[in-house]
Amino acid sequence: MGRITTRTKIVRITVGVDEPDASTVRRMDTLAAEEPLEIRVGGTPLTVTMRTPGDDVELAAGFLVSEGVITRADQFASAMHCSGPGTEANTYNVLDVRLAPGTPPPDPARARHSYTTSACGVCGAASIDQVRTASSFDVSADPVGVDAAVLAELPDTLRTRQAVFEKTGGLHAAALCDASTGEVLVVREDVGRHNAVDKVIGWAVLNDRLPLHTTVLQVSGRASFELVQKAVMAGIPILSAVSAPSSLAVEMAESSGLTLVGFVRGDSMNVYARADRVRTSALLPA
Amino acid sequence: MGRITTRTKIVRITVGVDEPDASTVRRMDTLAAEEPLEIRVGGTPLTVTMRTPGDDVELAAGFLVSEGVITRADQFASAMHCSGPGTEANTYNVLDVRLAPGTPPPDPARARHSYTTSACGVCGAASIDQVRTASSFDVSADPVGVDAAVLAELPDTLRTRQAVFEKTGGLHAAALCDASTGEVLVVREDVGRHNAVDKVIGWAVLNDRLPLHTTVLQVSGRASFELVQKAVMAGIPILSAVSAPSSLAVEMAESSGLTLVGFVRGDSMNVYARADRVRTSALLPA
Repeated sequence: MGRITTRTKIVRITVGVDEPDASTVRRMDTLAAEEPLEIRVGGTPLTVTMRTPGDDVELAAGFLVSEGVITRADQFASAMHCSGPGTEANTYNVLDVRLAPGTPPPDPARARHSYTTSACGVCGAASIDQVRTASSFDVSADPVGVDAAVLAELPDTLRTRQAVFEKTGGLHAAALCDASTGEVLVVREDVGRHNAVDKVIGWAVLNDRLPLHTTVLQVSGRASFELVQKAVMAGIPILSAVSAPSSLAVEMAESSGLTLVGFVRGDSMNVYARADRVRTSALLPA
Repeated sequence: MGRITTRTKIVRITVGVDEPDASTVRRMDTLAAEEPLEIRVGGTPLTVTMRTPGDDVELAAGFLVSEGVITRADQFASAMHCSGPGTEANTYNVLDVRLAPGTPPPDPARARHSYTTSACGVCGAASIDQVRTASSFDVSADPVGVDAAVLAELPDTLRTRQAVFEKTGGLHAAALCDASTGEVLVVREDVGRHNAVDKVIGWAVLNDRLPLHTTVLQVSGRASFELVQKAVMAGIPILSAVSAPSSLAVEMAESSGLTLVGFVRGDSMNVYARADRVRTSALLPA
């Protein structure tokens, strides 16, 4: 199995320390592991992502949800790490997915980062339309509500569950939480923020929980277009980020009816779209 | 021209405030702009990246350096935003690059994130070999040295130059600095960390400064494999990150002879590879 962390020798330098022995110290340090994973479907290479090894099957399943290929566990027949002859060291960096009969394989033209474009038609609005067309779920119709007090707790909850981050400082994390209670359903970590989210969504689809009604996707960093896209494709109605969203993330959230929260720090937060779902004590009846 | 920031209406919520008017405030907020850019070479689409508009020509030039297509300004003949009829809104999201006669166009098989793979051969070591083969420069031979005190100042220098980050909290930044003095040669910001680095490298190649001997590339976040790759392709001998490097970033740095520094905070820092180039007062003759 792949390693989630590795150990390496480093030189720790502190400037302005007069004692020669104190200014430069050699010691061991723990790093977040990063390795390429090639995801194949039925033997055909689909994408290569730089990921932290571990939960590769979930990563592949979540990626296929994000790409609009699957929405149910029974569409994902099996996944096998490739183990060709004489390639022992690389066995765990290729994962071949078999889809169930009747599940159409991904369109090769929609391979990752090959957004469909025509003539000069690439723009934010086209990207948004593309996701809306591809999504099987309508998150705007989700009757979920969430207490602001529940949202305010999620970054701390996420941090306490980030086992590897504590050791390396080098991983993004994503958690799927119950919107009513804040209870964490699953947490995943990865060097890539999109991979952490794919792992969470992959866990959910393999447990046949899509669409993810009444859940919050809490992420450790910023909210990009890509993360909003992934939430919409999985039917998650609320995305909450510790840091800032981008303009296109907000536009995508508004357009699809997803509640987008950012800068969740201490007791405060910014709500960028569908704020009607966020309950504050002040708005509740006395 | 594209917008670097946009304004949006938000709801700012503070939990635990008793006065109804104080707990929920509607106000305007500034976001970092994110829009897709399709980069074409000679009319052929090469990649689509989600970027912050601005410095698109540099972004494309830097991307072509990272991909091993160009190393000199005279190989980059021109770049034009695509302006087909009736596509006014999208005019600035497609950039077509013309290479000089005699400069081979990129191999379509090496389109972004389509790492060349064969059989089960995808692994970190293969990724490193691929970059080493593609690079025109040998950063291991660069006789550069840098004072730890100079490195310690760079994150603050970068932050003070991040004009847009101050307003949005949503941008990564990269700066190219003189290794002797710490003087900043260029700073670029983007929602994508790889784009910020591509813009910096693009500025450099268009000014015919490659290989970037005796420079430091300072980045605002973490150091991934991809960022080390970009530094190596541009002949930058030192990469310094505010946060953690990944395992593959360290392996790539060791393998290519790049000095990799991380966790540069206050007066201290970790050196992950080629620490012999980092001078501390304790190591200098009295």
